[in-house]
Amino acid sequence: MPENNLLHISKFVAPEVIFGLGALSQVGESAYRIGITKAFLVSDRGVMEAGWVDKALAYLKELGIDSCVWYDLTTNPKDTEVAVAAGQYLESGCDGIIAVGGGSPIDVAKAIAILATNGGQIKDYEGVNKITSPLPPMVIVSSTGGSGAEVSQFSMIVEKKRQVKMAIISKSLIPDIAIVDPLLLQTKSARLTAATGVDALSHAIEAYVSLAATALTDVHALAAMRLIASNLRESVACRTNLEAKSAMAMASLQAGLAFSNAILGATHAMTHQVDGLLDLHHGETNGILMPYVMEFNMISCGEKFANIAEALGVQTTGLGKWKAAERGIVAVRKLFRDIGIPQRLSEVGMREEHVQKLSQNALKDACLVTNPRDTSAAEIEDLYRRAL
Amino acid sequence: MPENNLLHISKFVAPEVIFGLGALSQVGESAYRIGITKAFLVSDRGVMEAGWVDKALAYLKELGIDSCVWYDLTTNPKDTEVAVAAGQYLESGCDGIIAVGGGSPIDVAKAIAILATNGGQIKDYEGVNKITSPLPPMVIVSSTGGSGAEVSQFSMIVEKKRQVKMAIISKSLIPDIAIVDPLLLQTKSARLTAATGVDALSHAIEAYVSLAATALTDVHALAAMRLIASNLRESVACRTNLEAKSAMAMASLQAGLAFSNAILGATHAMTHQVDGLLDLHHGETNGILMPYVMEFNMISCGEKFANIAEALGVQTTGLGKWKAAERGIVAVRKLFRDIGIPQRLSEVGMREEHVQKLSQNALKDACLVTNPRDTSAAEIEDLYRRAL
Repeated sequence: MPENNLLHISKFVAPEVIFGLGALSQVGESAYRIGITKAFLVSDRGVMEAGWVDKALAYLKELGIDSCVWYDLTTNPKDTEVAVAAGQYLESGCDGIIAVGGGSPIDVAKAIAILATNGGQIKDYEGVNKITSPLPPMVIVSSTGGSGAEVSQFSMIVEKKRQVKMAIISKSLIPDIAIVDPLLLQTKSARLTAATGVDALSHAIEAYVSLAATALTDVHALAAMRLIASNLRESVACRTNLEAKSAMAMASLQAGLAFSNAILGATHAMTHQVDGLLDLHHGETNGILMPYVMEFNMISCGEKFANIAEALGVQTTGLGKWKAAERGIVAVRKLFRDIGIPQRLSEVGMREEHVQKLSQNALKDACLVTNPRDTSAAEIEDLYRRAL
Repeated sequence: MPENNLLHISKFVAPEVIFGLGALSQVGESAYRIGITKAFLVSDRGVMEAGWVDKALAYLKELGIDSCVWYDLTTNPKDTEVAVAAGQYLESGCDGIIAVGGGSPIDVAKAIAILATNGGQIKDYEGVNKITSPLPPMVIVSSTGGSGAEVSQFSMIVEKKRQVKMAIISKSLIPDIAIVDPLLLQTKSARLTAATGVDALSHAIEAYVSLAATALTDVHALAAMRLIASNLRESVACRTNLEAKSAMAMASLQAGLAFSNAILGATHAMTHQVDGLLDLHHGETNGILMPYVMEFNMISCGEKFANIAEALGVQTTGLGKWKAAERGIVAVRKLFRDIGIPQRLSEVGMREEHVQKLSQNALKDACLVTNPRDTSAAEIEDLYRRAL
């Protein structure tokens, strides 16, 4: 099955990865190695309060690296926040950027990097390959088992005026070094652990069935699915289960490598619009929409959906690909119920009156291009309504 | 099983990869993108005669990049050849290095890069992390389904005087861009296809059981084994079987990612010495020694050896790990017989009188450090004698 995608030319890019319990200790050496002498460190309140930023600052100090800390951002970070932060970066005399946190601070760190050397406003870079000048050196320390932003060529920023989550996609957004320390996952709430884990699974599944999937992205996507199926419940259940945290951090990383290179699909195209409008947690919105999108996409590549089922631990022997594919979707729904993901968009504030506008915006989202099934406005509306 | 290796800090590095039929066409754009204006192109006679170098030169020319071509090297390239080539590089006014070929030209290209900016003799860099200055920009186009050198942090050069194959290991040796074009595999003889395929399998298996294996290297190692088990015979049998060539090129790439980051083991430590002494094809020597080393190593990690068997297509259900592990070794022997790999070291010129000196040298090889079973001089001597 994945053999056919060996016959086209494809590219695969990944940053240097440092992974493991205690890997945060490598942040000073990493920053030093890529020439940072004064670091602009982007984080968020939760990560600061958990003490991880202070630890990072101490490791930087050991290597003689001064830092400015910036953490004034919201979930689904806004273009206005990015503009302020980029101004501060330019005034600070910093010569490199470090993120310590989850998807939001990482996306902001990347957006600051863009404006620092390319100027203009962040919306100028919406879409694919709009960045022309090299970015400042960048080290990213990821604190969640979900976003995959530590290895990806994506930055997601909400344009406040349009209430749209913009996808900025460029190889330049891959940091020089990604540090993944599962210890940092221990200070996340169960709800955030569940939501980010769902995000990782949505990356793995959408990348695997993407029209741009390759043999390399398939390997990482399937590995991520296996790890998530065996560890997400346990990770949500217990903050101190380091084996589950490590497995989820590895799953997030591999799902990140997969979607960064294979791009995503309709779930993300639709989720971005809901997040932009209602400021929800991206992972929960993904969790609500994904089973419906999987049902819709299934007929485009039954064998791949059967492989998803198998990777999720479903006994598929003798089932035939369509039956196996369906069981995979059942397994996804069961997993999401077990970890308390909301099941309907109406539970999180979306209403029928939003459907048409969100569908129009989803049609323009860069992620829809690689969805394996052709998708019309009417079909997207229908999918939103099924999940409402 | 691989969960335990999530708990230590590990690093993973890979170059940008461009993969696919016709990917050679990307060499000009790739060189241009990393700032090469005049390229020192390293190749070998076989690759030149097959016409691939002329094609590469034309693609470079299209982007306005001039080139000097150097191809005066032997199998198991020598320190003396590297010294001459590095001198020519420095005189040529080139500002970047391109390799088009298999393991030998790639290893030489890397060695030239070292001397170009670090000076001295290549033996000064034997071992791990001896390179201090950044290397010139480097694009590698791989023409074999074996060496994995296009993505690895290894360069293997024979010191002529000592008759020893030196392992030079450093992250700096990973090129900026690796181009893998399965079309280039079509012009290799069946014998070279078999030998390089065996080399790829030895990389995958040794990396998988290495003491430095990680969750990421395991994923690539197992994927490589699966591809090799299903495609190596077919690739040897037919030059124009592009599906098999593509699968073997992908297997070589993934085995390369695995061993570059997890290092190797006793098979390579022992093979390097035989190659250095007798100037044999590295893949064939690996093929002779590997089953014996697998039998020796098996008790160190039975479950991993059972997983190897499964990846090689052995029906392992209900067998128990030790029986499964043994069947995996049987499958390796069967594969090597099917593709005509020699079965004894005596067939390729090694004699009893060599055993003691080669064993002493193997004990000092950097690859032995990560072998999963502790290994004494007497045990290495015994392994050489079993394979004699």
